[in-house]
Order: sequence, then structure tokens, then C-alpha cells
Amino acid sequence: MIGSIKHVAVTGGTHGNELTGVYLVKHWRSYPNEVKRDSFSTEVHLTNPRAKKEIRRYIDQDLNRQFDMQDLKNPQLKGYEQQRAKSLDAMLGPKQNPRIDFIIDMHTTTANMGMSLIFNSSDPFVIGMAFYIKQKMPHATLFFNPSNRLKDNFLTSMGRLSGLLIEVGPIAQGLLNYQVYSDTHTAVMHALDYLQQRNEGLSLNLPTQMAGYQFTKKISLPENAEGEITAMVHPNLQGKDYHAIKPGDPLFITLAGETIVYEGESTVYGAFINEAAYYDQNIGLSFMDKINISLEDHHK
Amino acid sequence: MIGSIKHVAVTGGTHGNELTGVYLVKHWRSYPNEVKRDSFSTEVHLTNPRAKKEIRRYIDQDLNRQFDMQDLKNPQLKGYEQQRAKSLDAMLGPKQNPRIDFIIDMHTTTANMGMSLIFNSSDPFVIGMAFYIKQKMPHATLFFNPSNRLKDNFLTSMGRLSGLLIEVGPIAQGLLNYQVYSDTHTAVMHALDYLQQRNEGLSLNLPTQMAGYQFTKKISLPENAEGEITAMVHPNLQGKDYHAIKPGDPLFITLAGETIVYEGESTVYGAFINEAAYYDQNIGLSFMDKINISLEDHHK
Repeated sequence: MIGSIKHVAVTGGTHGNELTGVYLVKHWRSYPNEVKRDSFSTEVHLTNPRAKKEIRRYIDQDLNRQFDMQDLKNPQLKGYEQQRAKSLDAMLGPKQNPRIDFIIDMHTTTANMGMSLIFNSSDPFVIGMAFYIKQKMPHATLFFNPSNRLKDNFLTSMGRLSGLLIEVGPIAQGLLNYQVYSDTHTAVMHALDYLQQRNEGLSLNLPTQMAGYQFTKKISLPENAEGEITAMVHPNLQGKDYHAIKPGDPLFITLAGETIVYEGESTVYGAFINEAAYYDQNIGLSFMDKINISLEDHHK
Repeated sequence: MIGSIKHVAVTGGTHGNELTGVYLVKHWRSYPNEVKRDSFSTEVHLTNPRAKKEIRRYIDQDLNRQFDMQDLKNPQLKGYEQQRAKSLDAMLGPKQNPRIDFIIDMHTTTANMGMSLIFNSSDPFVIGMAFYIKQKMPHATLFFNPSNRLKDNFLTSMGRLSGLLIEVGPIAQGLLNYQVYSDTHTAVMHALDYLQQRNEGLSLNLPTQMAGYQFTKKISLPENAEGEITAMVHPNLQGKDYHAIKPGDPLFITLAGETIVYEGESTVYGAFINEAAYYDQNIGLSFMDKINISLEDHHK
């Protein structure tokens, strides 16, 4: 793998109201040396300019669900973000054989997920980056969703070796918070340093295994016959991302104050708890499994 | 004043992405007894249904700036919210002689303003309500902006005796948080109880003076020649609503990490610090003066 990374893209504003990435892109256009590394070229892109201008997550569709290769090839998908995905495929791809080797995509969440490193590739090169950043930033959480790169619909799947989604919260949509901004800045620096050191063939002294979480399913908020939500996240669960949820623990509380408990039979872990962006589908949180992620087991 | 309140309106969703008020309105449509009091009628209204549907603050204009009587009478103002304001004038007003005696309008903020009670009338009846609620909820902050009711552009100015704006934060736009929801619920209950007790002529044992804050001016975020912001709220100031800002204290930090300090000569107090809704005008915070509010000095 020595020297295998030639072109890296750092992207922000994939969701137009997540301003941290938008303003880091602006910042790095003024200070390109910060993202420059000797062994590869780095480009920075604002990926959803119209949504950014309107300070909305998206205009027509969630851009970060449009990169399945079948969808990229489907000329009938003509919404704004579906067209943006095709433009990005032309600019960064094409997906089946991309020009860009690795993508670092910056996001924020209203959930209390701290610094979450989301990666969908089981390639040890990608897992190694997540391990490397977590060594440098121990408060980070590893969020691993192994998937087939060509079928994956995230922007990060557009990189030849896929990429890393940096998700930081809690922060409201449509604003900047310096802690979130500087934490994201730091994580991107580490990601680029990792790529540089891998290109140089340096030994990185990474652990062989680290703990993380894997998405299992989305949990809907209770709703009535008209499809309106009738309950919200329970105060005991609010802000408790990556904590255990045991059978009988409170999940939701109705508008009238009645508690609704988790009726499953096994312990799960919550993430994206009370993410504003998911209210468009009445989703209250994601369930995760706690897992051990191994650097060695996942060789392609 | 005994028995003088006949019709009260409790309003939510004036800003369509402040869901707390939206869902309290829905709740009280299912549980009207909670807002019922013996001596007056209470109606609950969702005031900006289209903005709520799109989960945006507004469609064309901020609805909560459209109630100046001159604007209500101006047929040229035809934006969605300008028309909504005219409909609300017909439903609750007319402004010069309103059907509704008192309006309780529910809002949220991304700023760390806790339970803020915003009132624009110096009538002791209105100041008394704020004092009464603060007695019951000592964590509340009084936010007093005396203004001429007919020229005032807030929805609360549509009540014959004006009204009370309940502003709770921090909470992101577009979601519900049970603590914010139940705190707002409690404040509305106290407001209605106050009106009931005043109608009954009960002695309320209110203090003659309480501390509060008065708006002085809006402070812009630094911006470049293109009108783009180049700095954000300084981390030392973030979340410090109603704390003192002294000459030389940090206000902002640039995208590159340089601190910008407050260069005024007198101590001020911040509010609406990093309110997402004000990014459309590049406003970073409001400056406030700390004041004593007197129940007796302000007789009309």
C-alpha cells in the first residue's frame, strides 16, 4: 500500500445546514497548507451549495443517500441532490473506478454523539485510520457499518478505498460552535497525517482490536393515524448516545407524559438519539450493537 | 381589573421549526381542560402552519415581526407571513381593539437562555404576570422590552393587554426535548393561573421589584466583503447568556482561531448568544442591560 494514496477529497456541507464542514471548507480554501501533505494532493469541496445557501439539510433528497452506483446510473433520478450526486460522480469518480482515493466527509448531529468516526469499509487501511484517530482522540467513538462500496449510498463510498465520515455533536443545525469546529478540524488533520504516514510506509503501532458500535436498526417515534408523532425521546434517554438500553428502560414519553419502555429482550445501545434531521421520517433513534473491531480479521 | 380578562389565546409554531409550542398546541387540543380556567375562555392556535409543515422558521418573513399596525394595514405586504399576520389580526384582533385580551406565545432558542419570560408592556398587570411566574419558577429570567403596543411587531402585541412570550433554550430547531416541553407547559399553566387569580381579584403578594434584562442592541458576527461570516461566538462566551461581558472579554473567534474582544467601555450582558435563527442576518448575540423592574413605577 506504500504510496497508494494520490488524491484525497475533504468535503463539507453535504447536509447544507451542518455549517461546521461548510466553514472548514471555506477556511481551508484560505489556508490550503493546513490540508496539504507531501505524498498526495488534497482538494476541498462544498458538496451541496444550494442546500447550504438555503441553510437546509437538502433541497429534494438527502444527498448522503444518493451514491449507490445503480442510482448514479439511473437517468430518471432528477432531483437536485440526485443531480448533484451525478456531478460529484463525474468530479470525484466514476464510482466503479474513482479518481479520488479517499474521502473525508464532515457532518454534525443534534444528538450527543461526541466525535463519532463512521466508516463503512472493512479494509484494514480504513479501520486503521479510525484506530489511529481514536488513539490521538480517545474521546472518539468508532461507528462501523461494513457495506459493499458500490452499493453504499454515502458520499464516502465514492473514494477508491472509500472514506471516513466525521460526525460531531451535539450541535443545533444552522450554526457554528467553536468546540465542534476545532474538534472536527483536529480529526481531519489526524486523518490526513494517517494517509501521509501510510504512504511513507511508516509503522503506526496500532492496536489489533478496538471497541465500537454497529448500526442495527432505526426506531420510530410513536405516531397516530395521521402520521403525526405522539411522543418524544424520554428524558432518561436524551443525550445518552452509546449508553446501554436494557429491556424495560424508558425510550419515549408521550405528549401527555406517559412513559413508553423498550420491550426488546437484549441490551442494545442508542445513537442518533433525537437527531432533528430524522424527524422527517419520525425516527427517534438508532439501535446499535457494541462490537469489537479487529484490524486483522477483515482483510479483503 | 377584576374580571377584565375574557379571552386568552395560547399560540405555538409562530416559528415553524420551534416544535415545542407546536406540540403543546396539539396536546392541548386533545386535553383542553388543562388550559381551561373558570373566568375566561382559552383558545389554542398553531399560528404558522406552512412553516411548521416545512419545519422552517418562516416561509417568506419572520411572522413574529409582522404585527406593527401600519404593516397590518398595508395591502402591499403580501408575503406568506405578512398575509398570516393579517389573518391573525382578523382572528384575534383587530389590533386597535382586539377581541383577545391576552396572548401567551411559545418559542424556543438555540441559545442557553433557560426559561426566559419576554414581555413588552409596562402595564403592571403584565409585569405582575412575569413576577408571578418567576416566583413559581425561580430559574426564569425576566426580559423586558417596553414598547408601544400598536407599533410593536410581536404576535404578543395583538392582545388587548398585550401578552407574554415564553422563550426556552437551549434546544436545536426541529426537535422536541421533554425538559423544554414540560418547562414550557408549566410556565403556561402559571400564566393562566395568574389571569384566573387576577380575574377573581385575589391578592397575589408579588414583590414590588425584581431584577431583569433589557435589550439594547444586536451585535453582528464579523463578515468579509462578500457578506460571509468570518468568525463565530467565542467558546468563553458560548452558553453564557445573561452573564456579564466586560471590556476586553472575548466575543468572537475567527475561522483561523484568532480571538476578537469586546471593545466597549461598559459592562453589558449577552442574550440570544449563537441563536441559529439570526444567522440569516449574521447576528451573533444581543447586548442587554441589567435592570430593576418595578411593579409600581410603570402605571400607564
